[in-house]
Amino acid sequence: MSLLLVLDLVGTFVFAISGATAGVARRLDLFGILVLSFVAGNVGGIIRDILIGSVPPAAISDWRYLAVSLLAGLITFYWYSAVARLRSPVLVFDAAGLALFAVSGAQKALAFGLNPVMAALLGMLTGVGGGMMRDILVAEIPTVLRADLYAIAALAGAAVVVIGNVLQLPPTATTIIGALLCFGLRLMAIHRGWHLPIAKWPERSSSQKHGPDDETM
Amino acid sequence: MSLLLVLDLVGTFVFAISGATAGVARRLDLFGILVLSFVAGNVGGIIRDILIGSVPPAAISDWRYLAVSLLAGLITFYWYSAVARLRSPVLVFDAAGLALFAVSGAQKALAFGLNPVMAALLGMLTGVGGGMMRDILVAEIPTVLRADLYAIAALAGAAVVVIGNVLQLPPTATTIIGALLCFGLRLMAIHRGWHLPIAKWPERSSSQKHGPDDETM
Amino acid sequence: MSLLLVLDLVGTFVFAISGATAGVARRLDLFGILVLSFVAGNVGGIIRDILIGSVPPAAISDWRYLAVSLLAGLITFYWYSAVARLRSPVLVFDAAGLALFAVSGAQKALAFGLNPVMAALLGMLTGVGGGMMRDILVAEIPTVLRADLYAIAALAGAAVVVIGNVLQLPPTATTIIGALLCFGLRLMAIHRGWHLPIAKWPERSSSQKHGPDDETM
Repeated sequence: MSLLLVLDLVGTFVFAISGATAGVARRLDLFGILVLSFVAGNVGGIIRDILIGSVPPAAISDWRYLAVSLLAGLITFYWYSAVARLRSPVLVFDAAGLALFAVSGAQKALAFGLNPVMAALLGMLTGVGGGMMRDILVAEIPTVLRADLYAIAALAGAAVVVIGNVLQLPPTATTIIGALLCFGLRLMAIHRGWHLPIAKWPERSSSQKHGPDDETM
Repeated sequence: MSLLLVLDLVGTFVFAISGATAGVARRLDLFGILVLSFVAGNVGGIIRDILIGSVPPAAISDWRYLAVSLLAGLITFYWYSAVARLRSPVLVFDAAGLALFAVSGAQKALAFGLNPVMAALLGMLTGVGGGMMRDILVAEIPTVLRADLYAIAALAGAAVVVIGNVLQLPPTATTIIGALLCFGLRLMAIHRGWHLPIAKWPERSSSQKHGPDDETM
Repeated sequence: MSLLLVLDLVGTFVFAISGATAGVARRLDLFGILVLSFVAGNVGGIIRDILIGSVPPAAISDWRYLAVSLLAGLITFYWYSAVARLRSPVLVFDAAGLALFAVSGAQKALAFGLNPVMAALLGMLTGVGGGMMRDILVAEIPTVLRADLYAIAALAGAAVVVIGNVLQLPPTATTIIGALLCFGLRLMAIHRGWHLPIAKWPERSSSQKHGPDDETM
């Protein structure tokens, strides 16, 4: 079992915990929680594999992704109080999972011949896709669309891998550097409350909750 | 026209009715109702076909799936009061559709070379996918994540097919047994109110509606 | 650069503006707005390409779709007040984008050997898919399920292309006629408030907001 696979499964595990926690918080039953575990841990990779034409996706054809996801869901289900107390360690693991998925996703996209810009974006998508689908399933606006540099950190990590590939640098080194950059950016964003700017809002409507209703044109 | 195709189209029809009913209840126009009919009746099979690499999916390349879906949508649209009164018969048809999609989905996944565990899960996904997408489109948490043994019944039916395949039992027999098991489990769950356990909730936050906001980590 | 590609990118641009506007109205940060821009401008085409087996999708493999989407997002972000005032011109561009995506989507589906009915529906899906996904991401019932002849206009335009193909008429002529028909229908629907019928509602429950809760069966 390669180091990359180990790290990949660790990433799946921590993302699956985030899905299971969302399910418990909404009082879903055990099955719903396991579904959210699998979705949060694997949908990012599944979407990437479908887009690059690598079917069936690894998360479907390799049973270990499923096993790790279900394990995370069961642990969260039976020890929810303990997991809920772990908020800060879980955030660190989550950042680690994001970092790894971003770099491994970018590498896989490059291996399938995508152009560098789209490879970096697919790396980012691999990192954030599971959390987006988790939030869609519980009928919320995905947190990644709001959260502190979450996707930007993934994009930065994936970009390092892609730039290294273009410059023909050794892939192991750029993978490690990319993962560390993503991990560090995300932790800094959490601890310092970094976030991206939001658009200036027309004065006339600043008191409305969702803004004007013309957004859907 | 094979028996399997007939049963498949019957399943599509009853699921399409569930989609159309959801659309009428939200006062969508005729087009929106027909879209929800098609989605509820076919998205489970479409996702399965994309995941196993069988494109274009059968629901796209065979016009009969579309015709049956639209017919169900039109009937619901023009005779909504009658359909709404049929609640209990429709639940029985819905359980039948679930049973059939679960076993046919598992067989198709096996035919495309997936491992047994994922084939069973894809059978389950075929059964529940349409309903999940229907609920996502109307901005709700999918009922399958909450409902009484709905997905578990589908998984059990698909598992029978897969186990039969591993043990090289005659596929016709295992298909019938798997479908009957799923159908029976689902009906029993409805009539007796069976459901899966939900996680124990920390005492401190039991009065909140959605639970603590830390679920997205 | 062919005329078709130019028109396609214009369509992507105006749809991306609709996505960015939705993001600004919900106070998302810059990244969230750019994601919604890309989603609204490209998801329709991506889903079509996945369904017909053309992977990686053009929106992933050709960097210009991304560039145009990001440009639209940035313009909306920095000049939101100006864009919001443009409501009526944007509606016209949006109708033009819908028209073009519908006819080009139908042509691509025909080129991949789909049957005429599904080719017309995939043309429609190409036109409306981006807006549907945009609304799912911001946790709303997609407007296309409600709006004035939006999808029907796309379907009409796509149908002209498909019928022309069946009758072996010159494709350039049918493409132009189909696009004009879609564009005209949509503008007429906006200006005159045309809409499709909705189902008659049982009297007993007409005072409820969402209707009876039995829609999910």
